[in-house]
Amino acid sequence: MKEIYFDNSATTSLCRDACERMKDVMENLWGNPSSMHEKGVEAEKAVTQARNEILTALGVKGLSSIGDNRLIFTASGTEADNLALLGVCYSKKFVPGKNIIISDSEHPAVLEPAAKLEREGYTVVRIPTKDGIPDMDALEDAVDKNTAIVSVMLVNNETGALNDIKRISKLVKSINPEALIHTDAVQGFMKMRFTPTSLGADLITLSAHKIHGPKGVGALYVDPAVFKARKLVPIIYGGGQEKGFRSGTENTVGIAGFGAAVKAGMQTLDPDIASMISVRDHICNTVTNDPAFANIKLNIPKGERAPHIVSLRLPDIKSETMLHYLSREGIYISSGSACSSNTGHVSGTLISFGLSEREADSTLRVSLSRDSTKEDADIFLKALLDGTGKLISMKK
Amino acid sequence: MKEIYFDNSATTSLCRDACERMKDVMENLWGNPSSMHEKGVEAEKAVTQARNEILTALGVKGLSSIGDNRLIFTASGTEADNLALLGVCYSKKFVPGKNIIISDSEHPAVLEPAAKLEREGYTVVRIPTKDGIPDMDALEDAVDKNTAIVSVMLVNNETGALNDIKRISKLVKSINPEALIHTDAVQGFMKMRFTPTSLGADLITLSAHKIHGPKGVGALYVDPAVFKARKLVPIIYGGGQEKGFRSGTENTVGIAGFGAAVKAGMQTLDPDIASMISVRDHICNTVTNDPAFANIKLNIPKGERAPHIVSLRLPDIKSETMLHYLSREGIYISSGSACSSNTGHVSGTLISFGLSEREADSTLRVSLSRDSTKEDADIFLKALLDGTGKLISMKK
Repeated sequence: MKEIYFDNSATTSLCRDACERMKDVMENLWGNPSSMHEKGVEAEKAVTQARNEILTALGVKGLSSIGDNRLIFTASGTEADNLALLGVCYSKKFVPGKNIIISDSEHPAVLEPAAKLEREGYTVVRIPTKDGIPDMDALEDAVDKNTAIVSVMLVNNETGALNDIKRISKLVKSINPEALIHTDAVQGFMKMRFTPTSLGADLITLSAHKIHGPKGVGALYVDPAVFKARKLVPIIYGGGQEKGFRSGTENTVGIAGFGAAVKAGMQTLDPDIASMISVRDHICNTVTNDPAFANIKLNIPKGERAPHIVSLRLPDIKSETMLHYLSREGIYISSGSACSSNTGHVSGTLISFGLSEREADSTLRVSLSRDSTKEDADIFLKALLDGTGKLISMKK
Repeated sequence: MKEIYFDNSATTSLCRDACERMKDVMENLWGNPSSMHEKGVEAEKAVTQARNEILTALGVKGLSSIGDNRLIFTASGTEADNLALLGVCYSKKFVPGKNIIISDSEHPAVLEPAAKLEREGYTVVRIPTKDGIPDMDALEDAVDKNTAIVSVMLVNNETGALNDIKRISKLVKSINPEALIHTDAVQGFMKMRFTPTSLGADLITLSAHKIHGPKGVGALYVDPAVFKARKLVPIIYGGGQEKGFRSGTENTVGIAGFGAAVKAGMQTLDPDIASMISVRDHICNTVTNDPAFANIKLNIPKGERAPHIVSLRLPDIKSETMLHYLSREGIYISSGSACSSNTGHVSGTLISFGLSEREADSTLRVSLSRDSTKEDADIFLKALLDGTGKLISMKK
């Protein structure tokens, strides 16, 4: 049985380059980057190399061989999101106010720190994202002189909606130039080309394991002006690693793997994106045009969308049931977001999108990688059709 | 040139078992443990296996195959220390008071979160540790009904002083049974046998990379009663991994490597400890008895001490100068704690121990592993002697 992995927004397989670099660091560069002797120096170099590889992919120029503080390595995209929101809001002295603005379809890694801040007395405004489009009027109403940070994800992890962060940034900064713009770009990184300037973002969250790097590594890009204005404080305190912004001995193996995955991925980025779009469109066109799929619907964002995510709605079959059916067929997809499978709640994102609870509960997410093919898509589509028939007849 | 690595308290080389397990997870078990399909289930199993391997090493019995929340995986010992201190103190509703007690020679991973809490209005009492012995009278004076948490490390990372956590726990609990006992056991784990009960600890910090596992993984052991009394809250919020106590996709590769390193290390623990003690004593005896070492002193704790750490004081040579001299000879040791090399301060721990600033600045730390031999020690001792002669004559 051929296995088909269509759950690349949950995590991706580790690419060869990342794997090889990680093995090299595991065997040869196991020193502590903080150590002052040669073993430490060579480990620190591996971290610096990865940092520069990732900053280069973000279009940052003029990098120093002694490292750069613009990229803070964390243990996950989640930790980077926490650092962005909590780290900005707790730098109280230097941040204008206690108003936080997020979209209502953020990942829990943004929703939950925002909820924590709300419990502590901050005002959190959640901007509607009906049909995957942030309500710009609501945003304009929400921004004021007290706005500390606005956090809107680049690509929604459940629907693939691609948000215009530049437009959001321009609007926010026109009302309050001191407010910081954060974007969780975990699902957008290496699925499109962007730079901090092209997004107008002060803080950008990245994650290694969504781009064929290892789990356990993320990063927060921080604009130098944020440091200069002292608008960020750490959330983990200790020995002062990452220029004091994230203490704890560096995950050298993971960081090196992250760098290698980014470097390798950048070399084939454009054809990879084109390939994902063609598979995505093949799935969407088949579901739309083939009468056999008449009772399966697409949740398509009304604005721009990412190349790798397709959200599908089943005819009154719980997505979890279909997920397990497909898993037995060797086809791996997700019901809503895998990251929130720990909670067992119906996805708030899909409700925000405009779905009923029942529809949200019947929604599947297919997420592609550069390795996905139309042949894989056809096998998936056939299994989906077979499964729909079987699961519906079982209910009768 | 034979390389001699005597900086095992900074970090250790990755053992074969950890390396092999990590490669297996990298290549075959790259699913997201939160995913509900087969790829997720098998990744989750790898995490559960590691959790059980570590809990078994801590003497915890009756483990479930579906996992256990007593061990929260983090990205470092530092993060585990932060989670212990901040996570307990911020669970305000359920923790008796705002009095925090630590020793004055804790690692920055405890010192810095405590300092943060102090800035926020908590009272932090720092117990003296002259000659490496916590002042029990000062402790008794400090504990009261407002004591939320007492955090004293098991083994000091700079002097090797081994603290009697059980005695500390008994004293604290006799005055305030609600106060929690935390110990940073990063330097004690796999250097001695202990269990949560034998230490009387409610919370125990562990780190993988000090025991021949990978960097980027730590853990906090949490007594079930702490959860039951709701005396812990997370410091990182999001998708609810680690039973909600530490969100972010699990570092499956690192966690699996941690488990494998622990399992392998436990099999040879007693002979390994005996081996480290014999090398440690060989160094100490030579420095004490060989007249050639007359101007090199040992900083020996007055109480119990760990098998793997020797603290040496040079005759008016900056430890950093000697460290670089030895590094060129292929011998890797540390000046004070490598983890705090980012700050560049003279070690507070050595001052607390009773050294002058000048003495602290001339102190080297030699830290052994199970792979260290007496032959290595002799090469190090000869280089130390040669270096001392050369560096002193250069000063004249």
